[in-house]
Amino acid sequence: MSENFYKYHVFVCTNRRDKLSACDDYDTRSVRDYMKEEMEKRDMHGEGQVRIGQAGCLGRCLSGPVMVIYPQGTWYTFVDQEDIDEIIESHLVNDQPVTRLLIDA
Amino acid sequence: MSENFYKYHVFVCTNRRDKLSACDDYDTRSVRDYMKEEMEKRDMHGEGQVRIGQAGCLGRCLSGPVMVIYPQGTWYTFVDQEDIDEIIESHLVNDQPVTRLLIDA
Repeated sequence: MSENFYKYHVFVCTNRRDKLSACDDYDTRSVRDYMKEEMEKRDMHGEGQVRIGQAGCLGRCLSGPVMVIYPQGTWYTFVDQEDIDEIIESHLVNDQPVTRLLIDA
Repeated sequence: MSENFYKYHVFVCTNRRDKLSACDDYDTRSVRDYMKEEMEKRDMHGEGQVRIGQAGCLGRCLSGPVMVIYPQGTWYTFVDQEDIDEIIESHLVNDQPVTRLLIDA
C-alpha cells in the first residue's frame, strides 16, 4: 500500500434514529460542517492533510456522540464547542490527542 | 491508545449529489447492507471484528464508487457483485487484499 491518502480522516457520526437516541440528536451535522470549515480556513483540508467526513452509525452509541479519527483509530466523545475546538487545535493542528475526551482512555 | 476497536472498519461511500454523479448512483446503500448481512451471517460483525458502515463523501469521487477500510487505509473501487464478494471473502474473511480493485495500487 502507498502512504495514507489522509493524515487524519475524521468520521463524525451523524446517524439518526426514529424514537431512539442517536448521535444526530446532538446536531453532529453542524459539528461536521464546523470542523470542515475550520480546516479549510487553515488550508489543511484535503489530500495528505485532514479530511472531515460524516458517517452512519459507528457502533458505539453508548459513548455518543462519537467521532473516530483514522488511520490512528482515535475515538472521541464531545459535549460542547470547547471540546470540538480542542480536538481541532490540539489533535488535528498540533498532533496532540485530547486525553480527557478519549473513549478508550 | 488501546487496541483497535474494530479489526476492519469499512466505510462505503453513500454520498448523493443533485445533478452530479456520486457514489450513491451505484446503489452503494445496497452494497453496504449486503456486506453487513454477509458479515453478520458469518458472526463476524462487531467489536474486535469487522464493522460495515456508510459514510458521506470520502473525497475521491473520480475513483468512485469507493470504500475505505481502516485502520489499514485500504481504498477500493468496485463495479459489480463479483467485486464485492471478492472483497468480503478475500480481504475481510481471509485477510488478503484484492489487488486488482485497489485504487492506490
